[in-house]
Amino acid sequence: MIVSILSIGDELLIGQTINTNAAWLGKELSLIGARIQQVLTISDDEHIIRKAIDESTADLCIVTGGLGPTKDDRTKKVLAAYFDMPLVEDKETLNHIAEFFARRNRPMLQVNIDQALLPKGCEILPNRMGTAAGMWFKAKGKSVISLPGVPYEMKGIFQEEILPRLQENYNLNALYHQTIITHGMGESFLAERIGAWETSLEEAKLSLAYLPSPGMVKLRIGSHNGKVDKQLIEGKINELQTIIPELIVGYGEDTLSTVVAKQLASQHKTVGTVESCTAGSLATSIVGNSGSSEYFRGSLLTYQTSMKSSLLGIEPEFIELYDVVSEEVVKRMAEAGKERLGVDYCLSTTGIMGPTAGDSQHPVGTVWIGLASSRETVAKKFHFGDNRLRNIEMSTLAALNLLRLALLED
Amino acid sequence: MIVSILSIGDELLIGQTINTNAAWLGKELSLIGARIQQVLTISDDEHIIRKAIDESTADLCIVTGGLGPTKDDRTKKVLAAYFDMPLVEDKETLNHIAEFFARRNRPMLQVNIDQALLPKGCEILPNRMGTAAGMWFKAKGKSVISLPGVPYEMKGIFQEEILPRLQENYNLNALYHQTIITHGMGESFLAERIGAWETSLEEAKLSLAYLPSPGMVKLRIGSHNGKVDKQLIEGKINELQTIIPELIVGYGEDTLSTVVAKQLASQHKTVGTVESCTAGSLATSIVGNSGSSEYFRGSLLTYQTSMKSSLLGIEPEFIELYDVVSEEVVKRMAEAGKERLGVDYCLSTTGIMGPTAGDSQHPVGTVWIGLASSRETVAKKFHFGDNRLRNIEMSTLAALNLLRLALLED
Repeated sequence: MIVSILSIGDELLIGQTINTNAAWLGKELSLIGARIQQVLTISDDEHIIRKAIDESTADLCIVTGGLGPTKDDRTKKVLAAYFDMPLVEDKETLNHIAEFFARRNRPMLQVNIDQALLPKGCEILPNRMGTAAGMWFKAKGKSVISLPGVPYEMKGIFQEEILPRLQENYNLNALYHQTIITHGMGESFLAERIGAWETSLEEAKLSLAYLPSPGMVKLRIGSHNGKVDKQLIEGKINELQTIIPELIVGYGEDTLSTVVAKQLASQHKTVGTVESCTAGSLATSIVGNSGSSEYFRGSLLTYQTSMKSSLLGIEPEFIELYDVVSEEVVKRMAEAGKERLGVDYCLSTTGIMGPTAGDSQHPVGTVWIGLASSRETVAKKFHFGDNRLRNIEMSTLAALNLLRLALLED
Repeated sequence: MIVSILSIGDELLIGQTINTNAAWLGKELSLIGARIQQVLTISDDEHIIRKAIDESTADLCIVTGGLGPTKDDRTKKVLAAYFDMPLVEDKETLNHIAEFFARRNRPMLQVNIDQALLPKGCEILPNRMGTAAGMWFKAKGKSVISLPGVPYEMKGIFQEEILPRLQENYNLNALYHQTIITHGMGESFLAERIGAWETSLEEAKLSLAYLPSPGMVKLRIGSHNGKVDKQLIEGKINELQTIIPELIVGYGEDTLSTVVAKQLASQHKTVGTVESCTAGSLATSIVGNSGSSEYFRGSLLTYQTSMKSSLLGIEPEFIELYDVVSEEVVKRMAEAGKERLGVDYCLSTTGIMGPTAGDSQHPVGTVWIGLASSRETVAKKFHFGDNRLRNIEMSTLAALNLLRLALLED
């Protein structure tokens, strides 16, 4: 089944709203084996909407947006006219809308009553979450579904009304794919390192996509031959694990932060941080996981150099001797933090974030990351670029990865 | 100028990546007066890419994605073939790539060298942040810009290379607008409070858009009569300042964080934070501004309750008596932080971030924010919703605003 998604709304075009609906639909539809041909975002304009419907060549076109009660919502009228279906009152929808307002103790306005006027001949898809019903048009050789743009209403109708019908009526030759999350090597190096394995995928008619994002490369293995290839793909992932064991962070929706959180929780270990250049970004990323109060105790953000003495007790002479961005200082930071925070693991960071190096002798992007545990204290040096926010992000990920590897060993 | 955006990548179609690039470009282009005709997202497929370029009717088509060094990136080759431009080595790009790897102490691979092979005849748009150069094709009656899909690289090239050229070569004077950044009141309440002023804008044929984002409402006043209305708009902004003086944070690209950073720097004051529920997000947001080491000293992240005693010296009995989420505790946190960090201002946070309230008697979303200064210690209670990450974000903004208002008074 080939599906096209048509997103309607000026707020999407001018970037006031990010098109998360299309991404959500894309994910859901891929999971049941549909292939997304394209996502087209257009203006709330009659002619443009008609043209887009007319030119759609997919087996199914899913339209989102433009079903609200206000004047700038045009989708329903345009579709009714396109499919020559007059708007008539739908009793069930009207009852639902009346109940909807009654339950909220709010008066029903004429514009809300008008939402029960629906094209005669389309299949009505009830919207439990709101007042704009979904509609499924099967006419003129086309299959077009219209859904409201409000994300939770759109999702509700899709899950309750559309998904069961799709699974019944189409022969979905499921697309099967698996995503492997890697950290620690750039896209080009990774491609070289796994080159032979990648060639073996091509020979097996499996596809491979590299999806880079800051500090990460996701590898997506896919097959249009669905269930048949499931075992084959799992075999290939097992092979990859032997080629780049240290680079694989997780699978699917995992991130470094969620993986480390799971490790800490299951190993009953606690963590704290002593941050200079990352200034809390590391702590924030750990605490982003709900339940973090089980394993995250606290942090000391010793941003100015003098704080490393006053809060951690590192002698100014020691810092002067080795430099504030050094292996010796980052190790002392981690050790002092481990003791003062009373944690099993303490991560530490010190570096030059940029955009300028100030009076440091190190180039912008130089970062030392330390980790103190009951076993040992280690430190690692990194060179990122000259973009301040990206350096903070990259340092945060590198620190999480250091902890991940230590937790794997312990 | 009419612009169409073409986003290339299977990861967008299957919803693995949300198309934030298109939203960002849409916003930037709208701001300079361009009209976005459509956003089309398609697969990394030669024929589909060619067809999309062929059918584009906009004055300018901006393509993102598919410029990486790996095999699944096809955009450059397809565009070179479409415009009949052979790929030849570009010396400057090659030098840049070589430097890029040298600075990171990493060897340059053949796939990276190949990124300097660029279509002969297109305008090369240097990519300071990465290795995939942008390209501007002006041929076959079309104007097509190709940019990498990595967001910060795409944004860098757009801002440094494209924006200045667009402003030079197109007549974009048409739209004049000013944006006012407000914090502290939701969209509907704000609309009611400034209702009379909004009516006066309509009478003056000026447009007003409400652009809400978490914790903020931006008000965009626009005119299609360009320079003529510039003074009129400035007069209206002056009027607004007398209506909602305490809600206006800044203008244009200001954020609470940049505004507070400017205040601290110009008033030669220092700041630190003692964070529980925000866990470093407040510190991170202050340090996001370059030059922050002038005024930001450090933080104590006392996430677990016992840390409030061990790091701040607040007696366990005191916390037991008043509750860890209370006015009394948040004030003690701010005062202890002011003293221990040696700062002029110390912000503190304690609250229930969710998704569950644990064993607290407060509902999820309850947050106390404190501020200690040489003048006084104040605290304010907030109720946000039940979304963990949004609560952290909202608390961070509310704390920055408390500091902003205090700095205005001092």
